[in-house]
Amino acid sequence: MTAPAGFRAASTTAGIKPSGAADMALVVNDGPEFTAAAVFTRNRIVAAPVKLTRRHADGTLRAVVVNAGNANACTGPGGDADALATAQATAEELGCATEDVAVCSTGLIGDRLPMDRVLTGVRALPAALDTTPEAAHGAARAIMTTDLVAKEAVHRADGWTVGAMGKGVGMMAPSLATMLVVVTTDAVVEAGEVDAALRAATASTFDCLDVDGCTSTNDTVLVMASGASGVRPGPEALAEAVRAVCADLAAQMQADAEGVTKRVSVTVTGARDDDEARTAARVIARDNLVKCAMFGSDPNWGRVLAAVGMAPVGLDPDHVSVSFNGHPVCVDSTGAPGARDVDLSGPDIAVTVDLGVGGTAPGGTPGTATVRTTDLSHAYVEINSAYST
Amino acid sequence: MTAPAGFRAASTTAGIKPSGAADMALVVNDGPEFTAAAVFTRNRIVAAPVKLTRRHADGTLRAVVVNAGNANACTGPGGDADALATAQATAEELGCATEDVAVCSTGLIGDRLPMDRVLTGVRALPAALDTTPEAAHGAARAIMTTDLVAKEAVHRADGWTVGAMGKGVGMMAPSLATMLVVVTTDAVVEAGEVDAALRAATASTFDCLDVDGCTSTNDTVLVMASGASGVRPGPEALAEAVRAVCADLAAQMQADAEGVTKRVSVTVTGARDDDEARTAARVIARDNLVKCAMFGSDPNWGRVLAAVGMAPVGLDPDHVSVSFNGHPVCVDSTGAPGARDVDLSGPDIAVTVDLGVGGTAPGGTPGTATVRTTDLSHAYVEINSAYST
Repeated sequence: MTAPAGFRAASTTAGIKPSGAADMALVVNDGPEFTAAAVFTRNRIVAAPVKLTRRHADGTLRAVVVNAGNANACTGPGGDADALATAQATAEELGCATEDVAVCSTGLIGDRLPMDRVLTGVRALPAALDTTPEAAHGAARAIMTTDLVAKEAVHRADGWTVGAMGKGVGMMAPSLATMLVVVTTDAVVEAGEVDAALRAATASTFDCLDVDGCTSTNDTVLVMASGASGVRPGPEALAEAVRAVCADLAAQMQADAEGVTKRVSVTVTGARDDDEARTAARVIARDNLVKCAMFGSDPNWGRVLAAVGMAPVGLDPDHVSVSFNGHPVCVDSTGAPGARDVDLSGPDIAVTVDLGVGGTAPGGTPGTATVRTTDLSHAYVEINSAYST
Repeated sequence: MTAPAGFRAASTTAGIKPSGAADMALVVNDGPEFTAAAVFTRNRIVAAPVKLTRRHADGTLRAVVVNAGNANACTGPGGDADALATAQATAEELGCATEDVAVCSTGLIGDRLPMDRVLTGVRALPAALDTTPEAAHGAARAIMTTDLVAKEAVHRADGWTVGAMGKGVGMMAPSLATMLVVVTTDAVVEAGEVDAALRAATASTFDCLDVDGCTSTNDTVLVMASGASGVRPGPEALAEAVRAVCADLAAQMQADAEGVTKRVSVTVTGARDDDEARTAARVIARDNLVKCAMFGSDPNWGRVLAAVGMAPVGLDPDHVSVSFNGHPVCVDSTGAPGARDVDLSGPDIAVTVDLGVGGTAPGGTPGTATVRTTDLSHAYVEINSAYST
């Protein structure tokens, strides 16, 4: 995240996480430009920092301050005031406008932030700001909740760079997957360009990661551009670079998902269009019985058919086909020889489902999409049955 | 199921279940009337017996033959022929038309039925037919899959009776919950009356039970009326009696759900109408993070808000309220004092959620609905990760 020129990062231990681990991070854009864009959760129950950052990320940002351990969600007007006070204190420390500070929070929903600790953290962060990889890594560690590893990515282009950090392992679903992500670049970009690049990148990466079908109140993906490289990439190069770091982080999130023992990709082909393919892939990727079968390395393809049969998309009930790791297990909605013997014992499982109606929509071309998910394991239940208490 | 006059039941061990337990059942209506109605899964991937029984349950049925251990789903034209051969052999044994025999199957999806064993079972069943409670209980046991207990219900009215058996513990969701149910009555009824009574009963009972959001390929609820009591109840009395046995079976299914350690009811109030209340309740009842919290007796109400915030219904994001077992834990989308201390250690948890928009739909009255579900436990994962193999 500090690989692009013009960015510094810092972390501190404010005492929000009961574990005593670092729990606050600050990322500052030192310019010369301060272009920014952001996308947010589609949940209608949104956390106070999301409401604030929606207003502040209006094309320009100087800094983002993040806390983990408390989501500041469902905290009422007091929570809104806490988010604003966090932005104000950060702006005061940095000597910028409050409106140029984004705030992100992640953690337990429903408790008020311990503001004395948060404000002490805000005051400690600026002195720790640095451009080193260690400073960036410290920030990536500080924003973790049930994440087991810090998540960072970098993409080096011709004279300019994109960096990113992210967190997210559970409550991950359609709108972004539950996560906080900060992307930085030293490219010279217009706000509209970087906004378009970010939206395209999230659509094909975070939006296609679905760990548990649950969507958080705090999802935020921010991008900040400093222009410090002096290089103005074309829109396609920019889009590809942003997509690359988002795809990298999404893969790290899938690999670190709560309780994961299998990385599962669900690819749907032969749909009426890409949107319907994505919808069908998501329905399968969220199905608890499919996910339990994956945990058990069980090639129980009937559950895939039962799941897709409820998806609100076009399909031919007599001509759905399924393969696991490239082995056909169901052809034309009927079991294939050897289907029960397919080996799914490895950590990666590729499920491919053809709906049998490719390109039959008016003017449509055969639709395809891939959604990444994980298995449903004992560990997922364990982690999520003892979270708040 | 044999409590109403005019019905006999039988069971046998055909060798379909690997366990060697009884796996076929037959219920025969001896008349004098043979009125029938049925409702089926809404899944578009439907098993061969469902396709057959949809045609045969056209107002009249003489018998239903059921096998457990193999769903005869996703078995292609050969599976259709197997279902028809089962009905033909049963009709031949009973001396009735093939079109008056319903067939139900439940178990693993995707394997062809062992027809030699099925037909041997069909030939053994008629000799075992009896009106005793033991014969009915044997049939209820024979249709079990991962059910731990047999499920039967009876409702005695003034001179007439309704009986029922059912199975279903997993792959339970919106359209009926995954189940096979046979309801019998000796009332004198018209086909249209009993069809209306059945549809109303399933809407408020099985349709409001959601164990895991998964919908099976084989769901079938059949009702057969013999008229043997000579009593013609009014439509309201009939509807109430059918609803009573369906509600009784639904409660038994919830209590025996796969891996259940908590019986959870989710009641939504203050919705724009009843349909929206039901949709919201279902979204909450299916949320894996909510269900894991229930398993952990964790009053983590923030997950309820995060879940309902994604429901496609009207709600006021600032005025959602939640209570657990009658204790307010969230008022106007903000935590209530003592919310983290609510005791959820008992086996029954009542979640009540008010959406804050009661009766605001044009011409609407405040909507309310209850959906019953269970927690997501280690045992659910265990049972469903090692099913086919």
